[in-house]
Amino acid sequence: MKLYVIKIGGNIIDKEEDLNTFLKKFAAIEGKKILVHGGGKMATKIAEALNIPQKMQDGRRITDAETLKLVTMVYAGLINKTIVSLLQKFECNAIGLSGADGNAIQAKKREKGNIDYGFAGDIEKINTDLLKDLIEKGLVPVLAPVTHNRDGQLLNTNADTIAGETAIALSEYFDVTLIYGFEKAGVLKDAADENSVISKLNPVLYSQYKNEKIITEGMIPKLDNAFSALEKGVKKVIIGKALEPEDLIEGRMGTTISTE
Amino acid sequence: MKLYVIKIGGNIIDKEEDLNTFLKKFAAIEGKKILVHGGGKMATKIAEALNIPQKMQDGRRITDAETLKLVTMVYAGLINKTIVSLLQKFECNAIGLSGADGNAIQAKKREKGNIDYGFAGDIEKINTDLLKDLIEKGLVPVLAPVTHNRDGQLLNTNADTIAGETAIALSEYFDVTLIYGFEKAGVLKDAADENSVISKLNPVLYSQYKNEKIITEGMIPKLDNAFSALEKGVKKVIIGKALEPEDLIEGRMGTTISTE
Repeated sequence: MKLYVIKIGGNIIDKEEDLNTFLKKFAAIEGKKILVHGGGKMATKIAEALNIPQKMQDGRRITDAETLKLVTMVYAGLINKTIVSLLQKFECNAIGLSGADGNAIQAKKREKGNIDYGFAGDIEKINTDLLKDLIEKGLVPVLAPVTHNRDGQLLNTNADTIAGETAIALSEYFDVTLIYGFEKAGVLKDAADENSVISKLNPVLYSQYKNEKIITEGMIPKLDNAFSALEKGVKKVIIGKALEPEDLIEGRMGTTISTE
Repeated sequence: MKLYVIKIGGNIIDKEEDLNTFLKKFAAIEGKKILVHGGGKMATKIAEALNIPQKMQDGRRITDAETLKLVTMVYAGLINKTIVSLLQKFECNAIGLSGADGNAIQAKKREKGNIDYGFAGDIEKINTDLLKDLIEKGLVPVLAPVTHNRDGQLLNTNADTIAGETAIALSEYFDVTLIYGFEKAGVLKDAADENSVISKLNPVLYSQYKNEKIITEGMIPKLDNAFSALEKGVKKVIIGKALEPEDLIEGRMGTTISTE
């Protein structure tokens, strides 16, 4: 049985029209699916209005207690429920979940290293029984990037990681395709040229492109994660513009990454 | 099979210690249960910080577009997920839901009469299949006072009404006890005396107390609702201080309302 785990980020969430377009297309995808969403600029805007200073480190938000409240409000509340109600409109039986709901995603607070990320969570366990059960009932889980430690603490958690770990965990039961929607058309040969998409990648090609310096720093962590997901059971990883999910699935757009 | 539908309001939600105490006791209640929560002062505080002017009419919030966003953030996000993560700590497998999630509660926007309540929702349909299914899996639904119209519109909805309608709808499958936790010890003979709780009420006593002007205006709509729920299949309604749910259930505290 096929399952699509699709992650969308702030670039789509921040634009009402794009979000509508994407959700309509997501709703039309046949078969079983999960949507994972990130945050976006809305949290930053509301943080400004509420005078909660935001600190970033290597692109990650430092989550102090006030920021955690903000993130819980905006990600698990406003964004999650807006998405769910729009999907319901498009006749997709969505159910929004944070990691605390039904203990869907258990995490632990990241240990302080050189940097204290605050209430940031690293995933420990995906509740596959719950997700499998909801999916088999025809429900479509919509996961917000907020988890918990099962000891009463909510934790801010990276949405890419949630999508990856969820895809891996559910590959025990399903043929999982993991789709990362982002702002570019796919993995590009020339970062300045949106038409230079590498349509297929496998481990051999990946090594070759890295040796030739065609694939460079920015994409390497993302692609390492993608190959790691494939090694752990995910059937296919696709990276590309989220606005055309059917084209990504069918391989007409984006970069499809597989072991073959 | 027994089911408890318990509603708590702002008076408990606003005090961290009270909320903890209540949730620990709620988690310990044996058997199947649903928690319905209201809003509280947090929404008003955050509205002030965000400069969203709040208008009230007869104790109800007028929900303009900005206030709806606020309510969705605070009720369905911050409060709902805080409650769920604390219940998970107390080993109660809570799952937080707005009315949009799994189409749990469908409502329609209240028609403009003399007053335009804005994005306020009147309940049309409780998804008993979904709730029954979750409950039977051992999950404990935690309902936020936000519903939707299944056409992409979230709606602010009174938590007392959600509790009442949910209790009525589920009485098709369960022996439902509906518990309204509020700030007083129960229905009082003397509004100034917390020790004057009327421990049992039935239709005959209710008429009598009304005739004797012992029960007056403030309590009448609440009690009319309670008796209406009983007529529609709910087995028992209990009104009292939420902090001692076991004592309410056992009839040691609060006012127990039944048809007998």
